[in-house]
Amino acid sequence: MRGLLLLAACAVLLPAYADEGMWTFDNFPSAKVKQLYGAEITPAWLDHVRLSTIRLANCTASFVSADGLILTNHHCVEQCLAQLSTKNKSLMDTGFAAHNRKEEQRCPAQQADVLIGTENISDAVLSSGLGLNDAAANQARKKILTSLEQACEQSSAKAKSGKLVCQAVKLYQGGQFFLYMYKRYTDVRLVFAPETDIAAFGGDPDNFQFPRWSLDFSILRAYENNKPANTPNFLQINFAGPSADQLVFVAGDPGSTARLQTRAQLQFERDTSLPISLMRTSELRGRYIQFGKANPADERIVEAPLNSLQNGIKVRRKQLDALNDDALMAAKSAAEQKLRLSSQLTGADPWREIEAALTRERALYVPYTLIENGAGFSSTLFRDARLLVRGADERLKPNNDRLREFTEASIPLIERDLFARVPVYPEFEQLTLSFSLERMREWLGPDHPVVRKLLTKESPDELATRLIAETKLDDALLRHQLWVGGKAAVDASLDPMIELVRLIDGDARAIRKQYEDEVEAPIAAAAERIAAARFKAQGTNTYPDASFTLRLNYGTVQGWVENGTPVEPFTHLDRAFERATGASPFKIPDTWMKAKAQLDLRTPFCISTSNDIVGGNSGSPLIDASGKIVGLMFDGNIHSIAGHYWFNSANNRAIAVHPAIIREALEKVYGAKELLVELNAAPQHLAAAAKLSD
Amino acid sequence: MRGLLLLAACAVLLPAYADEGMWTFDNFPSAKVKQLYGAEITPAWLDHVRLSTIRLANCTASFVSADGLILTNHHCVEQCLAQLSTKNKSLMDTGFAAHNRKEEQRCPAQQADVLIGTENISDAVLSSGLGLNDAAANQARKKILTSLEQACEQSSAKAKSGKLVCQAVKLYQGGQFFLYMYKRYTDVRLVFAPETDIAAFGGDPDNFQFPRWSLDFSILRAYENNKPANTPNFLQINFAGPSADQLVFVAGDPGSTARLQTRAQLQFERDTSLPISLMRTSELRGRYIQFGKANPADERIVEAPLNSLQNGIKVRRKQLDALNDDALMAAKSAAEQKLRLSSQLTGADPWREIEAALTRERALYVPYTLIENGAGFSSTLFRDARLLVRGADERLKPNNDRLREFTEASIPLIERDLFARVPVYPEFEQLTLSFSLERMREWLGPDHPVVRKLLTKESPDELATRLIAETKLDDALLRHQLWVGGKAAVDASLDPMIELVRLIDGDARAIRKQYEDEVEAPIAAAAERIAAARFKAQGTNTYPDASFTLRLNYGTVQGWVENGTPVEPFTHLDRAFERATGASPFKIPDTWMKAKAQLDLRTPFCISTSNDIVGGNSGSPLIDASGKIVGLMFDGNIHSIAGHYWFNSANNRAIAVHPAIIREALEKVYGAKELLVELNAAPQHLAAAAKLSD
Repeated sequence: MRGLLLLAACAVLLPAYADEGMWTFDNFPSAKVKQLYGAEITPAWLDHVRLSTIRLANCTASFVSADGLILTNHHCVEQCLAQLSTKNKSLMDTGFAAHNRKEEQRCPAQQADVLIGTENISDAVLSSGLGLNDAAANQARKKILTSLEQACEQSSAKAKSGKLVCQAVKLYQGGQFFLYMYKRYTDVRLVFAPETDIAAFGGDPDNFQFPRWSLDFSILRAYENNKPANTPNFLQINFAGPSADQLVFVAGDPGSTARLQTRAQLQFERDTSLPISLMRTSELRGRYIQFGKANPADERIVEAPLNSLQNGIKVRRKQLDALNDDALMAAKSAAEQKLRLSSQLTGADPWREIEAALTRERALYVPYTLIENGAGFSSTLFRDARLLVRGADERLKPNNDRLREFTEASIPLIERDLFARVPVYPEFEQLTLSFSLERMREWLGPDHPVVRKLLTKESPDELATRLIAETKLDDALLRHQLWVGGKAAVDASLDPMIELVRLIDGDARAIRKQYEDEVEAPIAAAAERIAAARFKAQGTNTYPDASFTLRLNYGTVQGWVENGTPVEPFTHLDRAFERATGASPFKIPDTWMKAKAQLDLRTPFCISTSNDIVGGNSGSPLIDASGKIVGLMFDGNIHSIAGHYWFNSANNRAIAVHPAIIREALEKVYGAKELLVELNAAPQHLAAAAKLSD
Repeated sequence: MRGLLLLAACAVLLPAYADEGMWTFDNFPSAKVKQLYGAEITPAWLDHVRLSTIRLANCTASFVSADGLILTNHHCVEQCLAQLSTKNKSLMDTGFAAHNRKEEQRCPAQQADVLIGTENISDAVLSSGLGLNDAAANQARKKILTSLEQACEQSSAKAKSGKLVCQAVKLYQGGQFFLYMYKRYTDVRLVFAPETDIAAFGGDPDNFQFPRWSLDFSILRAYENNKPANTPNFLQINFAGPSADQLVFVAGDPGSTARLQTRAQLQFERDTSLPISLMRTSELRGRYIQFGKANPADERIVEAPLNSLQNGIKVRRKQLDALNDDALMAAKSAAEQKLRLSSQLTGADPWREIEAALTRERALYVPYTLIENGAGFSSTLFRDARLLVRGADERLKPNNDRLREFTEASIPLIERDLFARVPVYPEFEQLTLSFSLERMREWLGPDHPVVRKLLTKESPDELATRLIAETKLDDALLRHQLWVGGKAAVDASLDPMIELVRLIDGDARAIRKQYEDEVEAPIAAAAERIAAARFKAQGTNTYPDASFTLRLNYGTVQGWVENGTPVEPFTHLDRAFERATGASPFKIPDTWMKAKAQLDLRTPFCISTSNDIVGGNSGSPLIDASGKIVGLMFDGNIHSIAGHYWFNSANNRAIAVHPAIIREALEKVYGAKELLVELNAAPQHLAAAAKLSD
């Protein structure tokens, strides 16, 4: 009980702001914000912010000029930087600056989605499974989601707004279903990125830490018809930044939370999925690091995947810590028991049904994850081979009979990724494939039928080496031919990676079917009943779990108290120089060392706020009540990771880059005067100079 | 509650043998064995087995001839094989066979201890702390243990039995203290070892699995005065092996169990120490594997450390699984509550005192483990440097004021290890040191004072590279000089590794002091009170947790039921050939392929028994009621790992090499006729031939 008592004690000492909540825009608690903070959040304000906010492939961003300029994090464009790099020249090391629009470079696998509208489809979806058993209801639900998405896209194509991307979204663990309609920009170009050494100053050791000094920003631009997009909805930047205690908002797409999951589901994460994941990723981290030591080129190859991996390790490590707090688990049980008693559900107890499904999941999780979910075959070329083999089979089926990832709505992104000419490093592919085959043998055992199929005469290393050496799928043209050629072309292919996929695809589909019917379906059915009970008991004045869809939350600029010591909400540039060691990840780039004399060392660097955000919110604008950007979210403090399961207002803090350091850098370190003019941030002499040069 | 109900259900279905217990020889339940199995275990039987059983540096073994011949596992001599190997020739790969006694090679860091006698010193030890606070009592206890050990060794040196090694042993979590007196053989030589490919057939994937086909045996010999030791107490081998259901005994030195720990202590392992350890060792595994891929020489360098690491990963992974069973944790709580209520303890509640100490441990564990316990400085040369620096300081103090690892009794083994000329591979040292420094920075944070001392200008990799390149401590002669030269020599040394140790030794000693006073001392005091309460409630008809001291347990040859399918207790040679893939770890060596036609493929290979053993029992003799060896323990099944916390007689099984496969191998694969004669296993024509050649 210590944990809970401590929370209660803190609540007495701290201001009673519980700034919890990742609210959908249609259900934002404006009245509560007005009551607490006196600010007026109007429907027009909400529309403007929504239309200015962008969902990237795995991050958030926002328009910051009428010509499609986009502000996001450096770590959100890391994949683009890696794809535009070569083995011998890394844009991560050097940074990137387009001196004019012609130099702006297209990111091969990036898009920018703007949420245009939403439609509640709960009735249609929830009624589709009536009278069916769980497995059949689960299938029926998928079919209707595909049908509704297709109808939406088809009808938008005929409307004057132009074709939209329509995606079905499950909210409140199945309590509601929506269609989300996006305008999608598929031509997104890199405009500016600082060097990783300053963008990720402190590296993995400082990740999820505050105080902090990471210049984690970059600039992209959306294009349409090969011209900068016309984006009248954009957010102006207030380079002065916010003041302490100021009311601030974060708009963006938090990726995933588990706050509405049952205690049994959390226990499954604690006992099974998190430990397995942590062991797996920790070993892979060791392999990456050792691989990178061979030479600078190999170090560049692993840089981006290593950063992403290490971020995941830290997240899951602290998630495990959160779930190991038995007092909080007990509180979760008590809340469930209360809802169970008050809801007077008829029929089987849904919490027990989830427990029963999880018992099945404990048996199926490892084979499902390894064989179907790809953890046994970690390799870009394996992924491509499976897309080709399955895509050939699935595209022959009616749209709503397909696996959900191969519906018509999903094809454009598959094709973009499959056809992209991005570098594939065979030695790195060999590493990840060998590793994953070896762990598959360990976890399934050497006598498992799938393992016997693959590893009767070769070791994991030998098999991986041969496959990567002999496959030709690193050729984008060949991938294009096989995709366009469809089933005939794929069936005729003797590429060894295609053959591997074919060899195990029956096994993989079988374990998927079993998993969907025995785990996914009963959990979905029970979760929907729990959601209905919760709506009945608590109303809809609540927010759904994060689902990488647009949300808005409110908070204030503030630090917290760590072991009795207050942490201030702002950091400044001077301390970054003091912490530098000269060796990465604590190296300040030469560009900054040269400019140091010109820099104002008291420039604010990072900001801590009480906003409720998680991964996916990276790149989100921090917005003041007037709708101006006063910061760029890029991280949370270490306590924010527990926010995956519950929000503790006493110490959960979001972290932003301060706009003043962005201006200081663009002006004095990088001399990016055109950009500053476009951002309206130019000091007078710069603006004048820019005018003269027009 | 599912777990407990399941156990209860099994107990009804299975024979009521609960063959649990790692009994000390002075408290073996002979009466119970007689009642259950009708066998007569006499004091003479116990004495003979005790005097024939050997404790090695980290394993068990037994004398198997009157000339000091020793039988143990292959994996118990792995370190010796590595130390007798070079970068280009590995005895792990080739195996080793001495064709005569001159070819027997001394293992640089091996010893053989035989338990000659024990003395109960509980009264003296427990009364030493009376009236003192916990921290002072903890110090007083250490002093008296040192004094008693010293007195014992001094008095033995005057006795006609010759000098003994005396070690204090804590049993029952502090309920009893004993002096254990050993005859120590310090000259132990390698006689025979098969190739790793057959000794560890199945490698890490098969580790802790049964059915099994690993020929995990090797043969050593104890020498005295440069001659084979005269060992009248030895165990004869019955090469026919045991039959199913036969009563069998295991004598040996189980390393460590936690069955008497409190629920709070188990929770600490579940939440803190096991996850940290698993993440750390998993990453290191990745680094080792990737390092070994560079070339065959590097692969040889990492082979032995990788095996040991992977064994530890599997153990801790299954320990974590065991502790994640909330039902078993709840049962532990209930048992504690029952003892609490029945024992009517006065004063503070000892379980709560342990909880309070663990709250301190949660704060101190990471810095203690990294800075004092060496996890921040993983390197043989760092270990040597610290032995030199601390040894110089400690040896100036009176014996019972020293850190326990530097008492007079400990000096001989320190000197043996420090002076041994064993290969040190700089590239491997660099790997482990760089890794551990990097993780120290991650876990302590870049602003921790010790991290700031070390890594202000260098990265972990740069520091490790420089230290390993510049230190001269890989020279055994230099280490000898510095040790013998004492404090003056060490203080004068400018060796960078010595300097590193000096730089942080104050910090390391400070965190150790804090840990001992605030964690170790209160836990020791509370555990002693719980032990007293338990003796009062349950008597002494119970066994203490494992402590790498001599124990005896009984069981029967039997398999178990896995997911409804019975597992037979014997495997046979034919199936090993069927499972071979040609690639390590499923490769059968060429020697065996060549001999295959001569081999009896129905030779029994491995045995499953219900004996209660854990790591440390490796190499233990499996003994029948007549005192003959009928197997060689080398592993447990996967369920046996949970035996660290509790014994489940339904599925916890020990695994032995069958003596028949040892004879088959020695005779038909390796042609080791002299050995077979000495083991009395020679077929008649061999014995005759040996006689002729005498």
